[in-house]
Amino acid sequence: MRAVVMRNRKLEVADIPVPEPGPGEVLVKTLACGICGSDLHALKHAERFVEASRRAGNPRVMDLSRDVVMGHEFCAEIVDHGPETARTLPVGTRVCSRPTLVRATGPQSIGYSNDNPGGYGEFMRLSEALLLPVPGDLSTEHAAFTEPMAVGVHAVARGRFEPDDAPLVIGCGPVGLAVIAALKLRNVRPIVAADFSPRRRALALALGADVVVDPAEQTPWQSWREAAVWRDASRAPALPPWMPGPPLRPALVYECVGVPGVLDQIMAASPRGTRIVVVGVCMEPDTISPMLGISKELNLQFVLGYTPDEFAATLGDIARGAIPVAPLLTGTVGLDGVPQAFEDLGSPERHAKILVEPGRV
Amino acid sequence: MRAVVMRNRKLEVADIPVPEPGPGEVLVKTLACGICGSDLHALKHAERFVEASRRAGNPRVMDLSRDVVMGHEFCAEIVDHGPETARTLPVGTRVCSRPTLVRATGPQSIGYSNDNPGGYGEFMRLSEALLLPVPGDLSTEHAAFTEPMAVGVHAVARGRFEPDDAPLVIGCGPVGLAVIAALKLRNVRPIVAADFSPRRRALALALGADVVVDPAEQTPWQSWREAAVWRDASRAPALPPWMPGPPLRPALVYECVGVPGVLDQIMAASPRGTRIVVVGVCMEPDTISPMLGISKELNLQFVLGYTPDEFAATLGDIARGAIPVAPLLTGTVGLDGVPQAFEDLGSPERHAKILVEPGRV
Repeated sequence: MRAVVMRNRKLEVADIPVPEPGPGEVLVKTLACGICGSDLHALKHAERFVEASRRAGNPRVMDLSRDVVMGHEFCAEIVDHGPETARTLPVGTRVCSRPTLVRATGPQSIGYSNDNPGGYGEFMRLSEALLLPVPGDLSTEHAAFTEPMAVGVHAVARGRFEPDDAPLVIGCGPVGLAVIAALKLRNVRPIVAADFSPRRRALALALGADVVVDPAEQTPWQSWREAAVWRDASRAPALPPWMPGPPLRPALVYECVGVPGVLDQIMAASPRGTRIVVVGVCMEPDTISPMLGISKELNLQFVLGYTPDEFAATLGDIARGAIPVAPLLTGTVGLDGVPQAFEDLGSPERHAKILVEPGRV
Repeated sequence: MRAVVMRNRKLEVADIPVPEPGPGEVLVKTLACGICGSDLHALKHAERFVEASRRAGNPRVMDLSRDVVMGHEFCAEIVDHGPETARTLPVGTRVCSRPTLVRATGPQSIGYSNDNPGGYGEFMRLSEALLLPVPGDLSTEHAAFTEPMAVGVHAVARGRFEPDDAPLVIGCGPVGLAVIAALKLRNVRPIVAADFSPRRRALALALGADVVVDPAEQTPWQSWREAAVWRDASRAPALPPWMPGPPLRPALVYECVGVPGVLDQIMAASPRGTRIVVVGVCMEPDTISPMLGISKELNLQFVLGYTPDEFAATLGDIARGAIPVAPLLTGTVGLDGVPQAFEDLGSPERHAKILVEPGRV
């Protein structure tokens, strides 16, 4: 089959064997697969990616001397059932799945793997038990947003969002936009979001942000403070006379940038007791000032991925239009266009999400 | 009055004015005051201490060009009531207090302050509203442990200790020992604690640790894993067949070292979902690997100080013997002995806590 392989730290289109479905697995044809920022990072900083994965205790780390077919945000179509399958979903069914193979020896990654090609190839094998049929009237392109949007849903849930919390989203790339959509899904208002890029700020508004800030113009915390005032003053805690008012709701910040230095900046600017949910994936070492955390009793909750229930719910929420993904889709390419798409995604003004359609000529 | 002042980055005994109690304040004679590790740091890295305090938004940062009398772990005796006091507690009453002055313009630190001398001087002014009388049969020396032990009580409460959590205390200096005492107070068992120093491991056992580990000999996590097995197997979560057993209780780690690099080590060794309570005060920048936090969904809760209720409860718990502080007291000095005591505290084998008794000749 044709696939975009990471080989010698470069992407190239190559012919590789079609993966063989094992017991309980199905063979699928990739219909569409989003390009994730982590894929860009895995290509650009492959050694660091592998080292971080190893240090985190991942038992199956990619071997960079062998081919890797990335792509973990996919919608696909069943083309064959492997042995020991229930075959509840017939051939031709469009499906989404978490990018994981469930095996007796433990879960295996699809995409960041030498053995399990991801969505930048014509075919994949998936675990039948994880398949979710795509509702009939949902487009394949939008279904492919299930994975990245589930990341936002999980960040909000795992970060224990409470109704009184006043959220601030730092960074409006795909991760920040997913968080905004997840907050909107819970009817949170106002949602304050910050990004240097005008295009991304416009996308933030399209996905449900109420206030967007250009950090080059003013601190996002000024807008946050205005948004964090208790509307029902009778519920606000009393402040001692020497403390400048008005009382503000608890701060819940989503760090969706993933670049060294951002966490420390957020810790410096946060009010006392702020909870910081770290969703942006920073693969490099990062320096923080613990004293900032200590003196303000900050909490950092690092989050990753999603639960099976969150993933399934996200597909349903996209299907019923509760998570608007259309504004995020800014380009589609065939396999040959993937290397250029990786380049293009470097500019926040041009693109949010590019989908790879391996069947496209 | 005589006091140990920090002057030109050195400690020296000097004669300075007796502080004058303002409205709602009392003048007290310092009976005993513990030397805190933060004081050692404030002396050794004064600029860094001030800079960290400034960056954290402290509105009243010490001016290092002026005298500072440190000391915030004290027991004192009322010698005079200032204006506008209720005088409920008569002259001669032994009292403890949080090291804070409550003023109409906001709280002020006692100790880390140019204006409010701490317990390394013969007299202090305290806010009447914060005074807690020392129970009659509690020794002055043990009452002076209220402040440092309250730090442990707060760390356990603010870190949301749950009954099923399996704790691991990293570092058994005064902060770690206070955490151990606070866990013991909640009847937590087993408590696993790690320190390189044999003396400190012995103190950890004296304060309630069940298992102590020398990290030079073996990883504390091995002992933790043995301690974290569910005793009631029927309450343990089921593990998938590929995951090595047995199932373990949730990990709650107390970082009580406060030295750069320790946090990253803990993050690397922690199992998935570990909550790390950062109690050790690291005033220097510290480098972490966010990927470790992300891939294991770690939580970092930074903590500081204590609530008024925790402080008062700790004094009561010491008085009734529920927090055993006697093993911690390894030395007492007069004012002239303070500079040497600061030196001596550098060795974990010699000392845990040295009390300053300004009235001692």
